[in-house]
Amino acid sequence: MTERIERAAVLTRLFPIIGWLRDYPRQAFGDDLFAGIITAILLVPQGIAYAMLAGLPPQLGLYASILPPAVYAVLGTSRALSVGPVSIAAIMIASALAAPEIKILGDSVHSALVLSAECGVIMLAMAALRMGGLVNFISHPVLTGFTTGAALLIMSSQIQPLLGVKIPACGWDWACYPAVWHNVKTPILAVGLVSLLLLVFFGQPLATLLKKLGLKLSWVTAVSKAGPLLTVGLATWAVGQFDLNAHGVALVGAVPAGLPPLDFTFLEGSRWRPLLPYAAFIALIAYVESVAIAKVTANLRGEKIAPNQELVGLGFANLASALTGGMLVAGGFSRTMVNFSAGARSQLAMLIAASLLAVAVAFFSTWFEAIPQATLAAIILVAIFRLVRLKHIVHTWRYDPGDGKAELATLLGVLALGLEEGIAVGIALTIACNLRKASQPHIAIVGRIPETEHYRNVKRHSVQVWHHLLLVRIDESITFANVGFIEEFLHDALRQQPNIRHIVLICNAVNDIDSTALEALESFNHAVKVLGKTLNLAETKGPVLDKLQKTDFLQQLVPGQVFFRTEDAVRSLG
Amino acid sequence: MTERIERAAVLTRLFPIIGWLRDYPRQAFGDDLFAGIITAILLVPQGIAYAMLAGLPPQLGLYASILPPAVYAVLGTSRALSVGPVSIAAIMIASALAAPEIKILGDSVHSALVLSAECGVIMLAMAALRMGGLVNFISHPVLTGFTTGAALLIMSSQIQPLLGVKIPACGWDWACYPAVWHNVKTPILAVGLVSLLLLVFFGQPLATLLKKLGLKLSWVTAVSKAGPLLTVGLATWAVGQFDLNAHGVALVGAVPAGLPPLDFTFLEGSRWRPLLPYAAFIALIAYVESVAIAKVTANLRGEKIAPNQELVGLGFANLASALTGGMLVAGGFSRTMVNFSAGARSQLAMLIAASLLAVAVAFFSTWFEAIPQATLAAIILVAIFRLVRLKHIVHTWRYDPGDGKAELATLLGVLALGLEEGIAVGIALTIACNLRKASQPHIAIVGRIPETEHYRNVKRHSVQVWHHLLLVRIDESITFANVGFIEEFLHDALRQQPNIRHIVLICNAVNDIDSTALEALESFNHAVKVLGKTLNLAETKGPVLDKLQKTDFLQQLVPGQVFFRTEDAVRSLG
Repeated sequence: MTERIERAAVLTRLFPIIGWLRDYPRQAFGDDLFAGIITAILLVPQGIAYAMLAGLPPQLGLYASILPPAVYAVLGTSRALSVGPVSIAAIMIASALAAPEIKILGDSVHSALVLSAECGVIMLAMAALRMGGLVNFISHPVLTGFTTGAALLIMSSQIQPLLGVKIPACGWDWACYPAVWHNVKTPILAVGLVSLLLLVFFGQPLATLLKKLGLKLSWVTAVSKAGPLLTVGLATWAVGQFDLNAHGVALVGAVPAGLPPLDFTFLEGSRWRPLLPYAAFIALIAYVESVAIAKVTANLRGEKIAPNQELVGLGFANLASALTGGMLVAGGFSRTMVNFSAGARSQLAMLIAASLLAVAVAFFSTWFEAIPQATLAAIILVAIFRLVRLKHIVHTWRYDPGDGKAELATLLGVLALGLEEGIAVGIALTIACNLRKASQPHIAIVGRIPETEHYRNVKRHSVQVWHHLLLVRIDESITFANVGFIEEFLHDALRQQPNIRHIVLICNAVNDIDSTALEALESFNHAVKVLGKTLNLAETKGPVLDKLQKTDFLQQLVPGQVFFRTEDAVRSLG
Repeated sequence: MTERIERAAVLTRLFPIIGWLRDYPRQAFGDDLFAGIITAILLVPQGIAYAMLAGLPPQLGLYASILPPAVYAVLGTSRALSVGPVSIAAIMIASALAAPEIKILGDSVHSALVLSAECGVIMLAMAALRMGGLVNFISHPVLTGFTTGAALLIMSSQIQPLLGVKIPACGWDWACYPAVWHNVKTPILAVGLVSLLLLVFFGQPLATLLKKLGLKLSWVTAVSKAGPLLTVGLATWAVGQFDLNAHGVALVGAVPAGLPPLDFTFLEGSRWRPLLPYAAFIALIAYVESVAIAKVTANLRGEKIAPNQELVGLGFANLASALTGGMLVAGGFSRTMVNFSAGARSQLAMLIAASLLAVAVAFFSTWFEAIPQATLAAIILVAIFRLVRLKHIVHTWRYDPGDGKAELATLLGVLALGLEEGIAVGIALTIACNLRKASQPHIAIVGRIPETEHYRNVKRHSVQVWHHLLLVRIDESITFANVGFIEEFLHDALRQQPNIRHIVLICNAVNDIDSTALEALESFNHAVKVLGKTLNLAETKGPVLDKLQKTDFLQQLVPGQVFFRTEDAVRSLG
């Protein structure tokens, strides 16, 4: 009996879908169906657009929108995350495929499939090593700076398909720009701008208008979210009607008919080695971004994300993508928000969306061939725009200048040096800052708040002190990084107050004393003993005391003592 | 008047020699003279031996023993540090000069001079940037592991001159080793072994013997420390007497006569760029090792080292070395210990030693030419032997397994991968460990120790608790690295005690809440409010509160409050 319950618990952990499907409330199905349809509508143009952003044929984006979200729905712990092609991963794929050592291999579709598979394997390896906690090593400011930088790079990459003109490397040569303007192909620009205006209109303005007209809220959402599909439909119709293709308006072009066949070409091993660093980098970012998005929606509904299980879900989704000829997938911000705000209650919405995509790809793939590229560029611009959060830098800076600097440095690093280098700058800066902070621990000379047993900083509170007693509270673990600073502080304090006879280190916040710190404390104790003073400890925690008892440091302290409470030290020495 | 005092203080800070020379006790001169002579006796063979260890002509070691220690004596803050050629720097120079991109430049003496100059410039730049605190980022275990590894590498490099045979790369092919043994040149081995035995005998055994015979302690020290010079004299005499050179015993060879001329070749710029990474690495290690040695002797006498001024002293010493045709210099462990234990009271001892060296180089340089190389190898082996501290790893491991692992990994890294790579492994491991520790902060659920206002861990003490009140003490700053762990901890605690109505975070050890952590706390507060519970803070420090007041977090907390003391929170909510 217990065994059966345990087995059920393990199964639920491995396949979270069992957990939520068991308790699935029947009335939620309507919501999920609605959200699934809305998300499917967004998946078609986004799939094609992000494939082209990655420099790949459109079907790689469509195929990545069928099996991968379904696999994630079974294995993932987020109820609302929409897994599929995403813009940030797409530009990272483009950057990897454009690297000289990858370009030389030829057949970028083959490389893209290997990238999906390798990313999946890396995520599963990370899951096996319980490395889900890695999310904790990229701070929000660095992640936001990276996203903003990548979004700006994506936006600038869409100027060319929107204007229909190849942008030369003008740089700071302003005289060069007017020539660009003269080359702009008017029909392309017209299609692009009209698409952009329609998309913007279908967003907030139309929703506000319909609400004012008293339309039911779910209908408002439906009409407003259908914007991209309607825009694509209108643009495609217009291009066909006015034969704009003959006037130079580029279309999506050939999309193979039917569902994707199983494709094992990614197993061919020669590309795995050169693509490894790119796959590892994209896997890390895709994972961190996905979990960040999943957490946002989970927090809004009081649900919970299991980081390691997310690695499993995303890892298998990417393997599924490689197997069905799709590009690398992750959780997308704008699509997840659409799914969530359309009322999705569970991953059933994504299962419905994936099924609809399968139907579309199986029977209507030729319809996609006539979509103008300028419209897709407009869709990317609109989707990406809300990822540009320049104001966030100001807010962060105001609260914590160090974090603000890290965010700005990451953003500038991405723009000036590239995606990998930018985030490396941000992470290195965060680590360096943390080490610097760690080397300057907070230390306070404390005194007793009258009539209490409470000890606080002498600088901030009016407290009682004793002229031959130095009470020093050390607010961090004592390690190689900060013990020099602490020694210096104590020496300075003794120099300023030569009457001090007893020094008490209050260690209620000291969780560890490492071996470098122990050596330094031994030598400090030696130095104060020579001067006829004693070194004492108070409020030392159990684990630290256990560790010290393995050495002869406590014997070296004598006549210095270890006191349980600061109060005891004061009563004994004060 | 005040201005004059201030000017004097500035001068003393810039030239520490003014400080100690002003208060120099006349009776200390005898001690310094004695220590100076002893150290000079050691400097001659060490200078030649370390130059040859670095793969350089002997005079580069001798020249580095004249002006550089004198410059350091004027500018350095250590009273006992013996600056000059050192073994660890010598093997790093050898490794740099053997790198393909440096070897190709030819003229290794020129490269060595550029290395000295560049190392000096880097140290001065670090001083200008107040980077003396960098010593804090290499922990003792990593430094000890590195020193042990480098010492083992040096010892293995001395087998060849000691045996007079080129060691082929036998590796694990044991059958290859007997052939090596057959090639051993017996006269060389004889000279080497006899030198080794003499050196060992002149160390502890002779000193013990002389003490037993009732000789005056200073005479015991003098005779015992003169060992290297006497050994060199004896070996040189024997080689001349028995014409061992003709039997294949290699000698030091030509040493230019007279004092070094000023040499500006290091100014030629083309080698600065390729040598930069090596110079930076050696500068860092030379600095860290020198300060570590200086601190040992300073602590023994209650003196003080100023890290930034040490960079100035060592930097100008290296520039002086380059200018007078000498190799890179640093503070040497064995020589400093000899100087200190011979009774040196100040850098006057090193000024005397440098003067004696100048006399020796000016008038007796031909005497050095007939020294057998095997004797120098024996001197290196004996000097280096005490730097091999394998037992230290065991001690460190027993006290702190993480530190022990870092020490062992650095040692193995140095042996298996090389000097730079080894210490890089150690530093990376230390940073990774620290980040991991930082991501798992110490958190305790606390209760009141009866009859006091003292709150301690419920797991370790029998304390008073309240069933609807959760008192959680967070023992570290809340940052992006650990906020996920903290959130998880709080969620788990609430799941286990569903009756909790008020959560109090005791923040007496929280020195900072960064922006990632603030976002997470806001979302946690939102989640508990939905459940009808309140989040409160207690003992929040001034700077943290200042920072939070810049946001609306404290308003978001309401009805949650900020309490001054934990006691206040308990009285209000308990």
